[in-house]
Amino acid sequence: MTRAWGRPHPAVAAVRSAVRTVLAECDPGDLVLVACSGGADSTALADAARFEGERAGLRVGAVVVDHGLGDGSAAVATRVGERLRALALEPVLVARVEVVDTGDGLESAARHVRYAALDEAADRDGARLVLLGHTRDDQAEQVLLGLVRGSGARSLAGMPAARGRYRRPLLDLAREQTRAACRAEGLEVWEDPMNEDPTFARVRVRRALADLETDLGPGLSTALARSAALLRVDADHLDAEADAAAAPLGAGPWPVAALVVLPPAVRTRVWRRLLVAAGAPAGRVSARHVDACDRLVTQWRGQGPVHVPGDLRVARRGGRVSATPPPPVE
Amino acid sequence: MTRAWGRPHPAVAAVRSAVRTVLAECDPGDLVLVACSGGADSTALADAARFEGERAGLRVGAVVVDHGLGDGSAAVATRVGERLRALALEPVLVARVEVVDTGDGLESAARHVRYAALDEAADRDGARLVLLGHTRDDQAEQVLLGLVRGSGARSLAGMPAARGRYRRPLLDLAREQTRAACRAEGLEVWEDPMNEDPTFARVRVRRALADLETDLGPGLSTALARSAALLRVDADHLDAEADAAAAPLGAGPWPVAALVVLPPAVRTRVWRRLLVAAGAPAGRVSARHVDACDRLVTQWRGQGPVHVPGDLRVARRGGRVSATPPPPVE
Repeated sequence: MTRAWGRPHPAVAAVRSAVRTVLAECDPGDLVLVACSGGADSTALADAARFEGERAGLRVGAVVVDHGLGDGSAAVATRVGERLRALALEPVLVARVEVVDTGDGLESAARHVRYAALDEAADRDGARLVLLGHTRDDQAEQVLLGLVRGSGARSLAGMPAARGRYRRPLLDLAREQTRAACRAEGLEVWEDPMNEDPTFARVRVRRALADLETDLGPGLSTALARSAALLRVDADHLDAEADAAAAPLGAGPWPVAALVVLPPAVRTRVWRRLLVAAGAPAGRVSARHVDACDRLVTQWRGQGPVHVPGDLRVARRGGRVSATPPPPVE
Repeated sequence: MTRAWGRPHPAVAAVRSAVRTVLAECDPGDLVLVACSGGADSTALADAARFEGERAGLRVGAVVVDHGLGDGSAAVATRVGERLRALALEPVLVARVEVVDTGDGLESAARHVRYAALDEAADRDGARLVLLGHTRDDQAEQVLLGLVRGSGARSLAGMPAARGRYRRPLLDLAREQTRAACRAEGLEVWEDPMNEDPTFARVRVRRALADLETDLGPGLSTALARSAALLRVDADHLDAEADAAAAPLGAGPWPVAALVVLPPAVRTRVWRRLLVAAGAPAGRVSARHVDACDRLVTQWRGQGPVHVPGDLRVARRGGRVSATPPPPVE
């Protein structure tokens, strides 16, 4: 491919254009932070954010989270931080966190402390936005992960492009474009060996997606991302309906009559809200728990209480259902 | 496995139990037809329906559709019909149809004429139900097909267990169970070579699913079927909302004000209904068409008409949008 002098490589232009769109919501002088692992996605993102931020009069910094997993993670994080400073990002924070698996798996725990560290940095520095480097391929993997778990629309909707101060400018770009952008700009990239470790569900899903593309032809990631976008619109609407339906129900006991009139798609979501409000950990309430609670309303035949994570007993008495801790054992 | 005399093989029992649940809605003397290709799924289904139907005082017949595709299809259909008569199904109809690809692909055309033949047989014989042999594996393939196409909730919801007089009793059973049932009952099964022809999208998806199970472990079909079931509930609710919202809009022109207030998840579905009612072929209206129409309402900047399959032009004039055939060329 021939390319005019001075004009950026197409991949670099694509990454910059995506970042520019997101930065348009900032005002001059605002601080934007890029969450950077040192991989191609977030390195291309950091470089483009620095370039576009400068043009828009923004300050662009970065946060490197050292999860302390794997040998030499501290040295890697330090080096990634140095490279970002060399790219003229400022401030650059290397945040060391400790990941403790509390029962939901190492990936979930790592994600939790990572976002806590990003939030803390954003709060301290007063960042307007935090940019995340997830690409369309990450999105496709996310959708496939949801499918493998047999999840509903919200999980299959993947990651949002915007939530709170977080933005994912690269969700419409392929991972390969960020790699090409890094090569074109001569950016050193660190390949995380954990990205090759098949003990992680995400790594297995990544391989599965590659196999699927071999079987079914290219364009699969794009299709999965398109399904995710459609399902996101649905999930947003259904969640809004469930919020509206759950609000007047309060802490219970809840009249069966108020629940049974709700359409099933709304009622299952209302159940989830009622259970979480009663103390169930959101991540541990499964469709199975919700179904069992729902049958107290829709298929009542005198069945006993339903046990829900968070040590809740959901029981029907007469025309009302309630979620309560179990009675104390004598 | 040791097995008491007289007790059916577990796979046979599972198929019979699934069929029994569905037949419970029939009255003695009713006719039930089984759509049978001669493959393991529909053969196990036919055998179980005959067994359970006899106990329930029902008449159980079968329809074998000869699509005329592939060498010797007529001989195969004849033979499958003979075997079903030997199993004491009555009446057994072998329906010969002609599949003409009218632009949506051979699989779609074959499905279309197949259901037309089944409907005709059911009408003629006054069948109460028509049973279809799709299993959980077929359902998983259907979901994956929808994903590969980047479809929304309705496509990802897969095949319904019940629609009109059609029932799919085996949707919760694995394909392997129907094979085991046929082996246990000594039923001859015909393996359609088209099931191995990778020019068909479904065959490629079937292989992809097998690869996925290798990558991600077993249980994938079950998970996909569970996602499908959750999405079906959502899609039913959203479709009902869209039906209610579209009904008062009539044939147009439609006031922009009436459309723009609808939540996006409902509005895109309303658009689909308006376009199909205006003459667009349902199967050819893509998310892209709907999006372009929607932008006439949500992102109006004086853009020209949107061209939609069925030779429709969707245009905005002032505060109204309409879908009309193009003006005659002089």
